[in-house]
Amino acid sequence: MRHLLLTATAIAAIALPAQAQDRAATNRIIDEGLNRSQVMVTAQHLTDVIGPRMTNSPAMRKAEGWTQAKFSEWGLKNVHKEGFPFGRGWSIERSSVRMVTPRVVQLTAIPVAWTPATNGAITAPVVVAPIERERDFAKYRGQLSGKIVMITQPEPARDGTEPDFKRLTGDDIGKLDQYRQPTYDPASADRRMKRLDYAKKLDAFLKSEGAVAVASMSYRDGKLIHGEGYLFGVGETPSLPQVQIAQEDYLRLARLAKIGPAPTLEIVSDVRFDDSDANAYNIIAEIPGTDPKAGYVMAGAHLDSWVAGDGATDNGAGSAMIMEAARIIAASGIRPKRTIRFALWSGEEQGILGSMAYVEQHLAHRGPAGSEDAKGGNGMQRYYGYTDRWPITPKAGYGDLAAYFNIDNGSGKLRGLYAEGNPAVVPIFREWLAPYASMGAGNVVIRPTGGTDHVFMQSVGVPGFQFIQDPLDYGSRTHHSSIDTFDHLKAEDMRQASTVLAGVLVSAANAKDPLPRMPLPTKPVVTDPFAYSQDDD
Amino acid sequence: MRHLLLTATAIAAIALPAQAQDRAATNRIIDEGLNRSQVMVTAQHLTDVIGPRMTNSPAMRKAEGWTQAKFSEWGLKNVHKEGFPFGRGWSIERSSVRMVTPRVVQLTAIPVAWTPATNGAITAPVVVAPIERERDFAKYRGQLSGKIVMITQPEPARDGTEPDFKRLTGDDIGKLDQYRQPTYDPASADRRMKRLDYAKKLDAFLKSEGAVAVASMSYRDGKLIHGEGYLFGVGETPSLPQVQIAQEDYLRLARLAKIGPAPTLEIVSDVRFDDSDANAYNIIAEIPGTDPKAGYVMAGAHLDSWVAGDGATDNGAGSAMIMEAARIIAASGIRPKRTIRFALWSGEEQGILGSMAYVEQHLAHRGPAGSEDAKGGNGMQRYYGYTDRWPITPKAGYGDLAAYFNIDNGSGKLRGLYAEGNPAVVPIFREWLAPYASMGAGNVVIRPTGGTDHVFMQSVGVPGFQFIQDPLDYGSRTHHSSIDTFDHLKAEDMRQASTVLAGVLVSAANAKDPLPRMPLPTKPVVTDPFAYSQDDD
Repeated sequence: MRHLLLTATAIAAIALPAQAQDRAATNRIIDEGLNRSQVMVTAQHLTDVIGPRMTNSPAMRKAEGWTQAKFSEWGLKNVHKEGFPFGRGWSIERSSVRMVTPRVVQLTAIPVAWTPATNGAITAPVVVAPIERERDFAKYRGQLSGKIVMITQPEPARDGTEPDFKRLTGDDIGKLDQYRQPTYDPASADRRMKRLDYAKKLDAFLKSEGAVAVASMSYRDGKLIHGEGYLFGVGETPSLPQVQIAQEDYLRLARLAKIGPAPTLEIVSDVRFDDSDANAYNIIAEIPGTDPKAGYVMAGAHLDSWVAGDGATDNGAGSAMIMEAARIIAASGIRPKRTIRFALWSGEEQGILGSMAYVEQHLAHRGPAGSEDAKGGNGMQRYYGYTDRWPITPKAGYGDLAAYFNIDNGSGKLRGLYAEGNPAVVPIFREWLAPYASMGAGNVVIRPTGGTDHVFMQSVGVPGFQFIQDPLDYGSRTHHSSIDTFDHLKAEDMRQASTVLAGVLVSAANAKDPLPRMPLPTKPVVTDPFAYSQDDD
Repeated sequence: MRHLLLTATAIAAIALPAQAQDRAATNRIIDEGLNRSQVMVTAQHLTDVIGPRMTNSPAMRKAEGWTQAKFSEWGLKNVHKEGFPFGRGWSIERSSVRMVTPRVVQLTAIPVAWTPATNGAITAPVVVAPIERERDFAKYRGQLSGKIVMITQPEPARDGTEPDFKRLTGDDIGKLDQYRQPTYDPASADRRMKRLDYAKKLDAFLKSEGAVAVASMSYRDGKLIHGEGYLFGVGETPSLPQVQIAQEDYLRLARLAKIGPAPTLEIVSDVRFDDSDANAYNIIAEIPGTDPKAGYVMAGAHLDSWVAGDGATDNGAGSAMIMEAARIIAASGIRPKRTIRFALWSGEEQGILGSMAYVEQHLAHRGPAGSEDAKGGNGMQRYYGYTDRWPITPKAGYGDLAAYFNIDNGSGKLRGLYAEGNPAVVPIFREWLAPYASMGAGNVVIRPTGGTDHVFMQSVGVPGFQFIQDPLDYGSRTHHSSIDTFDHLKAEDMRQASTVLAGVLVSAANAKDPLPRMPLPTKPVVTDPFAYSQDDD
């Protein structure tokens, strides 16, 4: 009830600018978005036809070309790609992991991203060696030679006592609308850097001990596998092949190893590197504004994905919604005041690197004057160190970006907007969303969100936002997993989302004023002495 | 509350026989079952070490030997196996299904049981041909040559809006205690026979059309696979290799085929037949009774399993509980009045054939006097025709079996007993279970259950029962699936179940009278004119 009351009050308070907007445009958008939708055709091409789009992989290159062609076909302008240094391309041609003694079982497993090929089959006994930090090395020294090392602690997942598939209730949404004061953990970036450093030290240790391959355990049960890997930089490739094994299969291996003798695995990991271009590319397209001095609004989603599924909910869905919103606005013949820019990011899964590059290229420099941009770092170092660079120095285009909207939470319909800790935008968002409230998208909540392509914009004081989305089975099952496939996308949700997104973008592009910003961030000083940091990335 | 009241009343009404029992035995059973349990060690050997135990497979042969050795080691008597005609042995050595055009994807798939090997790799385009009945043949004639035929209608599963993992509430159990009058569908056996016949006709049609392999779709999503097949009889082996493909992978193939050109699959199905012995074997063991004229009580579980997982919840769990109950009673030094016989059945997954053979060998003949036993049929024909044979003629041992208890519903703890439509046993069961009510096992409900090894005993009028069990994730995920592995077993539940089972068996063996039976069944005549039969088995 509190929400309804606030909504009514807020709308009344800013009724004049609302009436000034082109209400007919709203209905043209809804007509195009719901009656002539292309969003599932787009999503199917990205997922079924092109498949998983790991950054710099051959499939991602195809997607970079195809999405530009589509934007152009739909009449978007200034369609181009913007490169940034990334690392190696990598793809899976064939893989097989079998237990061959004490009995034969075809296991469910996937090569870990950016690990090297086995060059044929590696057949060796396993050893369970859950080496979690550098001081564990001593414990396992001398025991790993000729072995496939199982590096994950063999603990099963908890039982699934919640439904896999879920839509948000009003109560759920209400809980998101509670302001939280910011906290700052000065040591967090440091710890993350050490963690990354550890992955390299572990690989060197295992290699020096004569281990022949590495096996880790999937973090979801039910035979879901994921295969994330982060040593993608040129010169960073680990020396040992590594597979991630389904939880049920990994746990069986660990139990049999405990009984003894240790089971023998046969691993075939036929993976391919592609070093033809170490740059990754963001795709940019625009609907030009009628007022060249009014700046631009922007919507983005990362086009890259992991490789176990087809990158459908993460983030073919978001990419298709962004593209569809562009198509809807273009097809509706709307000429907005501000330019509307669309971005399909790359390198998000490896540290939000595409939108970080955009910030560096267009918005602000982080770090002492004259210091190298974060993009000078290698691999994920860029990501972990980035928000610890001070001060922030705006670039020429800093003031032009009036609002950025990100989509990266699966295929669920939009339920409203996160104000992302910026209370001044709440009444404005309520007004923009009012036409879409009857589609379930009328909610505005204060909660900040993280982990995707709006965060580095937020981190330099540019207003970046995400939509509230129905979770469906995104967090429970599809996120990064082997079932992130087109059949887990919800067509009706995706049509609604593309339509609402288009509507919000047009409202933002036509708004009298740019969105109110937070002050330019400076290094925080308020730390929480009661918080025990559990930052484990 | 109604339950509690009834329980108290019932106990009061039959208090005398209860007091006559050896209460000390109950506490010795609980001590042995909970403080010195071996049930998880047994279960691990059956699942991790021996693995899936498909009827007549090499692993099932190992299990037949190991379980007899264990029974003997624990002091059981008359340990032996009893053979019955079954069919071929079959096992998987290696399998791989990849989509190789329009792009490369390693799919999740399993050879369908008792289908032939590919002898190397079969590489061919797919065709979606959901041929569901004989009259569909004409539609696809001339289109299948050289193709891998996708025979399942490509429809996705419904979203999982219930938790995977569940325990029964009091309300859930209350709903099971509602008497339902029996109904009879005289045409059901006929339809099932036709369905089985259809599988053979379909194989012949596909072969004659020049198809090279068959692909079906898994009936669960989330990359779970199962691979059941029923043409296990000697001379019944289908002519075409067949794989069951995970739902996400199958649906992607179907969608790509619709866009065209049809994807190409590479199938490797390295499976092995073992025809060294066409008999399957039930394993029998006993704790002899002190009164040779008192007959026997019996508990059983099927030892055989499907092959996608390790046959843990179906039915390594039940087998281990049966074995553990035997061990507990033997170790407790209890000398029951009646003999307690333990059975580990074979061929359950292919039509409850092991316990059917037991009925034929020990209890009753079904069909006209002098007619061949059902076991004379081949494969699943035995199963489908069995309960349609009239009259029932008791054999010499018919009256000796005082009660049969079956376990086949996963690893969940026992919550009580199904009276299986036999109201006269309700007060007796309540009394037997009273010591275990505080462990959650005090419930008695009238509902009949089906689908496993007590049904053919019931069908000839012998009192056969099952326990109520907490469902856990048995029905939702593990039943027949690729995650039917040891890590999905619950140790505390299995200790409780083995202990309660042992206690109930001792009560049944010591009871003054055999359990009240239903009258000898005759051919039913009451059919339900309002019931539209949906028997699709």
